[in-house]
Amino acid sequence: MTQRALTPDELEAALRQIGATRYHNLHPFHKKLHGGDCSLDQVRAWALNRYCYQAIIPQKDAALMARCEDRDLRREWLHRITDHDGLEGEEGGIERWLVLTDGLGFDRDYVISREGALPATKFAVEAYRHFVAEKSLLEAVASSLTELFAPKIHEERIVGMLEHYDFINDRVVAYFRRRLDQAPRDAAFALDYVKRNAVTVEQQRQALRALTFKTEVLWAQLDALWMAYVVGMPAPGAWAPGEGLRAIEAAA
Amino acid sequence: MTQRALTPDELEAALRQIGATRYHNLHPFHKKLHGGDCSLDQVRAWALNRYCYQAIIPQKDAALMARCEDRDLRREWLHRITDHDGLEGEEGGIERWLVLTDGLGFDRDYVISREGALPATKFAVEAYRHFVAEKSLLEAVASSLTELFAPKIHEERIVGMLEHYDFINDRVVAYFRRRLDQAPRDAAFALDYVKRNAVTVEQQRQALRALTFKTEVLWAQLDALWMAYVVGMPAPGAWAPGEGLRAIEAAA
Repeated sequence: MTQRALTPDELEAALRQIGATRYHNLHPFHKKLHGGDCSLDQVRAWALNRYCYQAIIPQKDAALMARCEDRDLRREWLHRITDHDGLEGEEGGIERWLVLTDGLGFDRDYVISREGALPATKFAVEAYRHFVAEKSLLEAVASSLTELFAPKIHEERIVGMLEHYDFINDRVVAYFRRRLDQAPRDAAFALDYVKRNAVTVEQQRQALRALTFKTEVLWAQLDALWMAYVVGMPAPGAWAPGEGLRAIEAAA
Repeated sequence: MTQRALTPDELEAALRQIGATRYHNLHPFHKKLHGGDCSLDQVRAWALNRYCYQAIIPQKDAALMARCEDRDLRREWLHRITDHDGLEGEEGGIERWLVLTDGLGFDRDYVISREGALPATKFAVEAYRHFVAEKSLLEAVASSLTELFAPKIHEERIVGMLEHYDFINDRVVAYFRRRLDQAPRDAAFALDYVKRNAVTVEQQRQALRALTFKTEVLWAQLDALWMAYVVGMPAPGAWAPGEGLRAIEAAA
């Protein structure tokens, strides 16, 4: 069977279709989180594990730059690292995530150590870093395209979490507010790059597969949370309620 | 706090303690599988996903040899690859695993493609391969030590599955019978290597952590199966009953 390549607009539609069917806003854990049905400990487990994902982002972006011979692309990509790691006068996304885990009562050293994170979470985020380091540059860029779908989930999260949880305030959702501006800019650049560079049938297949892979990385993290803290079967050694909290919170 | 290094026998005891508390024979899925409480489709899901683990073993062993400057260790390690990949006159463990999936009705190409495998399974086995490729040689060897605990689970599996499932016969459990001989030999060598080479507190900590990591790789695979096929929340795109079977089985 011969297959023709998609036009750029058809490719964009196919990429968006992956988001519509596989993005993690469709996972039951997100509905539970945004709808106010999570306990404080379930929100803690989510924030603790999601820290692993935040922490790997600058490393995967550095891995992309490390194998990129195109100076323009490196110059464009660099701000993704500083967006997360921060730069003088700008705290960065990882710091904002730690403000969230602070707000939930966690000891920072415990969060940063990742010792209570679920193994499945660590395997998923490490898979993302290795994917970006080992696949083609086109696939590495395409795997970032879940940001196309992020603003909607961040808006739902800010509204839903402020409304439903008295332990969530404006300060601790700063991470998501900031991503409302950052993600669309990054996604627009990456989408344009993929539409210009994925021209053959094989390249388009790779780009679509890369985005699917990334949705799997995100979905697997919520599956792991559901298994451990909704079904109630945490892997040996995983965080248990009460662990890793600042003394004052643990005593409360 | 100063900490003294363990004696070789103390180190062995500490390694065995990890098995006693974290090996995947303790996971509810194994109790369900060996006790006859799995449906045919749950056994299929297990065999299909576990193929990903079988398939990565020779790659992780090649990764170990690729960074090993010690010819004696490479010569010793080589048979692990041929045990799985086979060599003239010897079918090998992966072929024996495919006899198992044949017996469950799967199309071989579907199994080998891994397209129906759970993303979390693939992330876990890839984490194992990357661990062996990136950590120290001592840690790479130590991560194989789950084989110390394997014969017991294989014996339980052979007896339990033959007794409880009429779709399991002697031919399809050949993989496990063969591992009853292979695993103890490999485990004895690796244990001796680790006891001789992990002498400082830090090396011993690394060896213990490597074995813990490996138990996490195995546990995460059963968590993923439980989530998808016992809780009933398979990730988008994962195998669904009826898929990937030979025509005659699908029609049955």
